[in-house]
Amino acid sequence: MPDRILRAIGQQTIDHRGPDFAAVGQRALDGMKSIFRTRQNVFIFPSSGTGAWEAALVNTHSPGDRILMFETGHFAFMWGKLARRIGLNPEIIEGDWRGGADPDQIEDRLRADRAHGIRAVCVVHNETSTGSVSPISEIRKAMDAAGHPALLMVDTISGLASIDFQFDDWGVDVAVSGSQKGLMLPPGLSFNAVSDRAMETAKQASLPRSYWDWHDMAGPNKTGYFPYTPATNLLYGLNEAIDMLHEEGLDAVFDRHARNGAAARAAVRAWGLEVLCNRQGQESGVLTAVLMPEGHSADAFRAKTLELYDMSLGNGLSKVADRVFRIGHLGDFNDLMLMATLSGVEMGLANSGVPHTPGGAQAAMDILKANAA
Amino acid sequence: MPDRILRAIGQQTIDHRGPDFAAVGQRALDGMKSIFRTRQNVFIFPSSGTGAWEAALVNTHSPGDRILMFETGHFAFMWGKLARRIGLNPEIIEGDWRGGADPDQIEDRLRADRAHGIRAVCVVHNETSTGSVSPISEIRKAMDAAGHPALLMVDTISGLASIDFQFDDWGVDVAVSGSQKGLMLPPGLSFNAVSDRAMETAKQASLPRSYWDWHDMAGPNKTGYFPYTPATNLLYGLNEAIDMLHEEGLDAVFDRHARNGAAARAAVRAWGLEVLCNRQGQESGVLTAVLMPEGHSADAFRAKTLELYDMSLGNGLSKVADRVFRIGHLGDFNDLMLMATLSGVEMGLANSGVPHTPGGAQAAMDILKANAA
Amino acid sequence: MPDRILRAIGQQTIDHRGPDFAAVGQRALDGMKSIFRTRQNVFIFPSSGTGAWEAALVNTHSPGDRILMFETGHFAFMWGKLARRIGLNPEIIEGDWRGGADPDQIEDRLRADRAHGIRAVCVVHNETSTGSVSPISEIRKAMDAAGHPALLMVDTISGLASIDFQFDDWGVDVAVSGSQKGLMLPPGLSFNAVSDRAMETAKQASLPRSYWDWHDMAGPNKTGYFPYTPATNLLYGLNEAIDMLHEEGLDAVFDRHARNGAAARAAVRAWGLEVLCNRQGQESGVLTAVLMPEGHSADAFRAKTLELYDMSLGNGLSKVADRVFRIGHLGDFNDLMLMATLSGVEMGLANSGVPHTPGGAQAAMDILKANAA
Amino acid sequence: MPDRILRAIGQQTIDHRGPDFAAVGQRALDGMKSIFRTRQNVFIFPSSGTGAWEAALVNTHSPGDRILMFETGHFAFMWGKLARRIGLNPEIIEGDWRGGADPDQIEDRLRADRAHGIRAVCVVHNETSTGSVSPISEIRKAMDAAGHPALLMVDTISGLASIDFQFDDWGVDVAVSGSQKGLMLPPGLSFNAVSDRAMETAKQASLPRSYWDWHDMAGPNKTGYFPYTPATNLLYGLNEAIDMLHEEGLDAVFDRHARNGAAARAAVRAWGLEVLCNRQGQESGVLTAVLMPEGHSADAFRAKTLELYDMSLGNGLSKVADRVFRIGHLGDFNDLMLMATLSGVEMGLANSGVPHTPGGAQAAMDILKANAA
Repeated sequence: MPDRILRAIGQQTIDHRGPDFAAVGQRALDGMKSIFRTRQNVFIFPSSGTGAWEAALVNTHSPGDRILMFETGHFAFMWGKLARRIGLNPEIIEGDWRGGADPDQIEDRLRADRAHGIRAVCVVHNETSTGSVSPISEIRKAMDAAGHPALLMVDTISGLASIDFQFDDWGVDVAVSGSQKGLMLPPGLSFNAVSDRAMETAKQASLPRSYWDWHDMAGPNKTGYFPYTPATNLLYGLNEAIDMLHEEGLDAVFDRHARNGAAARAAVRAWGLEVLCNRQGQESGVLTAVLMPEGHSADAFRAKTLELYDMSLGNGLSKVADRVFRIGHLGDFNDLMLMATLSGVEMGLANSGVPHTPGGAQAAMDILKANAA
Repeated sequence: MPDRILRAIGQQTIDHRGPDFAAVGQRALDGMKSIFRTRQNVFIFPSSGTGAWEAALVNTHSPGDRILMFETGHFAFMWGKLARRIGLNPEIIEGDWRGGADPDQIEDRLRADRAHGIRAVCVVHNETSTGSVSPISEIRKAMDAAGHPALLMVDTISGLASIDFQFDDWGVDVAVSGSQKGLMLPPGLSFNAVSDRAMETAKQASLPRSYWDWHDMAGPNKTGYFPYTPATNLLYGLNEAIDMLHEEGLDAVFDRHARNGAAARAAVRAWGLEVLCNRQGQESGVLTAVLMPEGHSADAFRAKTLELYDMSLGNGLSKVADRVFRIGHLGDFNDLMLMATLSGVEMGLANSGVPHTPGGAQAAMDILKANAA
Repeated sequence: MPDRILRAIGQQTIDHRGPDFAAVGQRALDGMKSIFRTRQNVFIFPSSGTGAWEAALVNTHSPGDRILMFETGHFAFMWGKLARRIGLNPEIIEGDWRGGADPDQIEDRLRADRAHGIRAVCVVHNETSTGSVSPISEIRKAMDAAGHPALLMVDTISGLASIDFQFDDWGVDVAVSGSQKGLMLPPGLSFNAVSDRAMETAKQASLPRSYWDWHDMAGPNKTGYFPYTPATNLLYGLNEAIDMLHEEGLDAVFDRHARNGAAARAAVRAWGLEVLCNRQGQESGVLTAVLMPEGHSADAFRAKTLELYDMSLGNGLSKVADRVFRIGHLGDFNDLMLMATLSGVEMGLANSGVPHTPGGAQAAMDILKANAA
Repeated sequence: MPDRILRAIGQQTIDHRGPDFAAVGQRALDGMKSIFRTRQNVFIFPSSGTGAWEAALVNTHSPGDRILMFETGHFAFMWGKLARRIGLNPEIIEGDWRGGADPDQIEDRLRADRAHGIRAVCVVHNETSTGSVSPISEIRKAMDAAGHPALLMVDTISGLASIDFQFDDWGVDVAVSGSQKGLMLPPGLSFNAVSDRAMETAKQASLPRSYWDWHDMAGPNKTGYFPYTPATNLLYGLNEAIDMLHEEGLDAVFDRHARNGAAARAAVRAWGLEVLCNRQGQESGVLTAVLMPEGHSADAFRAKTLELYDMSLGNGLSKVADRVFRIGHLGDFNDLMLMATLSGVEMGLANSGVPHTPGGAQAAMDILKANAA
């Protein structure tokens, strides 16, 4: 986390009903619209991202509603589980956890749903457990091609502010995000971007809700206030983060992540290892998941690397537990940090007895060198 | 907010699934049991207090359930509104906003409910909008006297860690609290303390829930982890706050607030003004609400005091809007801060043309002087 | 110390020879000119104020030089001691420690020095040990009246940025200051403001010096750099402090201190105690020293007040040790902090058995009330 | 700078004459003895390292004294210049700036000084401008072999707490250090370690001094206090730094720097470039200075690397200006940071058109990999 953000968060809490708060709240709400690239609605919850998943669903559905979800990995799976827990009826398209959601399969399912019983299509933009990106704009086109009225809901918890996301231009209805990834904050804030159409849908949706209710939020938000106590200090940090993103420029931020992703994959290939995501063009600029050679424990390797180099790598989740390790390159991350990380992986592989060809870091450097910012 | 807590919050976020997190999580969970004075269950949510209100209700009820609530003020009223929003059927005992919840009225209602249709009695411990304290232990006795099986639910958002609260000894079933009052943190964490009996009730309760689900939390909590991303940096601050409270001693903390409350009321009386709470023994040590003389605007006075002395007083909420101002004396607050505050009020009254007798600050000082810590 | 300044100081140290440093250094040097109210020269040393005393003397003198000093209190005495330590020949006018330096006595001494052997007149602007202010502009007039060419050197360590100081308009030649008083920083920076005439004198002065040498500093300072490693993080804080002072306005800062000083003295008189400074118009807005009633120990009272109210009062130094306690009201200090402080003193007096009339805080409040900012 | 230290520095300043200060001061003074590895005397000045150079000389000399200095590089040269400025008579042994001070040459000069007119031998332990280390223990042996009574004075500003330094065992008389290198603090504190023999010498030395006077310091230091205002907030940070160094273990700290130095030199050689220090065994673990190929500007390369990779490399000073760039690997620095740095250098060389063989970072990695901590 950047010092600049930590310092912002450390300021004294002001009264969230007092006159000075309006500017803080308004700046955060407007700023998040610029990050989501929307002119429609944005809501900020004092919760972690899981809460914003729940908010997205409870505002737009009634008990028993059918929704279509694409299981791109662990987090898509967990969102589905949550949907069932709150009384929805999710229909899951199972993926192989090695790529993004498939527009064709979605289109097929929607075409088959002639009665339009499916209320929403839910996909994960950047699947943090696998390092794959779903083609959101293509999915919207597939839905339109099928002539289906379902809402398009996108979890971009780890995608937002790291890889391109365009709420309005891509025709998203509800987006879900959180503070602790591309926004470089501690966890504790979550977001919904909401289309005007979804706001209308919310008026009919009968799932019980109060904390997560968009329409309750919308009133006080108009003047920069919230219907209940907001997480004021995190809002200070959010405003600082939004400034930092715009100072660099969102497109420059996306380029930086893309370059780092390409370099990380070059390293993996040079080591003779396999990147989990095997769909060309869907590899993530946020993180790179790497398959461990057969017979080697990813977790033993991760533990050794932590011990020797004080570097924490992401673990494989559920289906790919101990089979995969994840190299993060998100947020406030630059070329030299990537080189430090890849060097740590390469030295960790060597010191863990994992078969590999040295030279991955060097291969990554060749990519970075040729693409200096 | 104490610097010590702000510094704790400003530390780098660690991986909430990594090996170092367990100690942070366990310390917070155990520490909060010591603050609630319970050996039963405590849950910590990344949300503000309103979320913990919702959590208390959705875990223990099914759609349409009847609950008995006592409207001691604005916050009790808001909790009732929330209950209706999520599909419950609250029966409200209306108070006059000048005292705590009345055990006798509660007993009468419960005796009348021979079919035991009422599932819970909900009261606010320290009503932040009025400065009145409900006699929780007496309410439990009244419920027992009526032989009624309803759960006792208590909002102690602003009471916990400032005035005496004993979850186990007083027989509370569900307590609700938040981080930003007696715990001296920024907003963003909320709490439920839950009796074993309420945990059992939760197994039957059919209101949809996921984020707020106690049983989902209970599993990972056993080893200090959480089912979804916790607000890690606020947990750092929470652990620091718990240490600070125990270093001073909870009883010393309660004495300090009681002394400050008594001194504040002495000031109000010396000015010739009226304390909103008119039930002897139910006046709050957390804040003192003051009735404005007829024909004078509390908000105009508050604005003037803010302008001249950079001091923000609490406003009157809903029913008592513009009729009341509130003097806070909670959290990391000592005798000299109270004297600064009361001096600011006295100078603000003078500079706002509000009729009063000077000498309130001096009267408060006489109380403090005679009761030095 | 204001949070805003602490946060500024906590930023990462940048390379003091790198391209970004120039702006930091230039802003500090220019900013300090605006605070000293001079268009001439300002130097910033990584040292505490004692270092700047030494710098003032070693840059302008040769071994054995005679200087005239006025002993207004402990700090004036210490400056004299330092002068002797480095080989100067100070002639001391002894004061009674109850007022500022006396222009008439200075004029008499200078007139008597027909050979103009005295090279400098050294006075303390705000004597921190007694709470008295020397009339600097009158002293310059007295020097001019005597037609004496000595340099006028002023220690304004605790005066600068709290009470009026005008380097150019008052004809000061060398001023000495430090970071930890009116500038609201931690200790570690010290300052010399230097007239062009004193810069010329420095070219002939033969006392050995290197760290403190003005002319060594002057070169690199032209572009915002320093000849050796500066205290970079304190310069961050200094730049923030200078901004804060100008946001409030220097004149408003001086008014605030004057009002607080008047109120503090009103409290002392109401208690029936005596202010150490007994020269009308020379009482300090920075601190108020109070004489203890005969037979009572100031230090015992200070210890009791610290124990009961966690408030640290200044002690009496050397001649007035245990006879005096000092109430500070400098830097980031406002009317309510003064009321807290005076209330603490009044309660401390009561709890220490010191004879006094209650009502001092109330008397101070009457002054503040009538003079709201 | 580690966050832990920045947080320590950000605490509120306490009264440096109050009862709580003694523990802070005592801990710093004792802690610094453990870092210098001495049981004799340590003094802490609120100044940068240049001040401690001056302190070392003014406490031990009288005007016109002869001293022997070895010019290992820019900083040794600057210390000599300072000596002349304060009236000493330094005799300089000129080095070639590519190695440490030579014990044999020192021995020869001392043997030639039969009258023992030379009062001190001054050498730089780790020459920051060249990356060479002087063999302090061998120099003491040479002095003893010559039977010469001169004091041994060592500048270990950038060596202390990064590479081995043993004040007592090596027979050093005065050591000079600063806060901003191995101690990981901002600049603003400086240190003298002083042998009992040098303390005796100080009693006769007649150079004027006050701020820097050791004997003035020694009295108050006995109880943890200082004769004038110390840089309190930096002392907080110093105490934290000392704890961090002992938690890791000084020997582990030295090993880490030695390993990083060896890896950095391997990189330089693999690039086909030349390390400035050409004396085997005298290469620094703190920084590595690299000679630029003939016809290429080191400063142009540094500017490009800063622009492209936001990484600031040290510049060549005076004699080697624009001919050399310096890679720092000191303080809170680990293997992965070194890999980031070397990767940045390698990419910078490529993007600046400097002739070199790629693969330096890889060569460094081979060293680090084989020597994991």
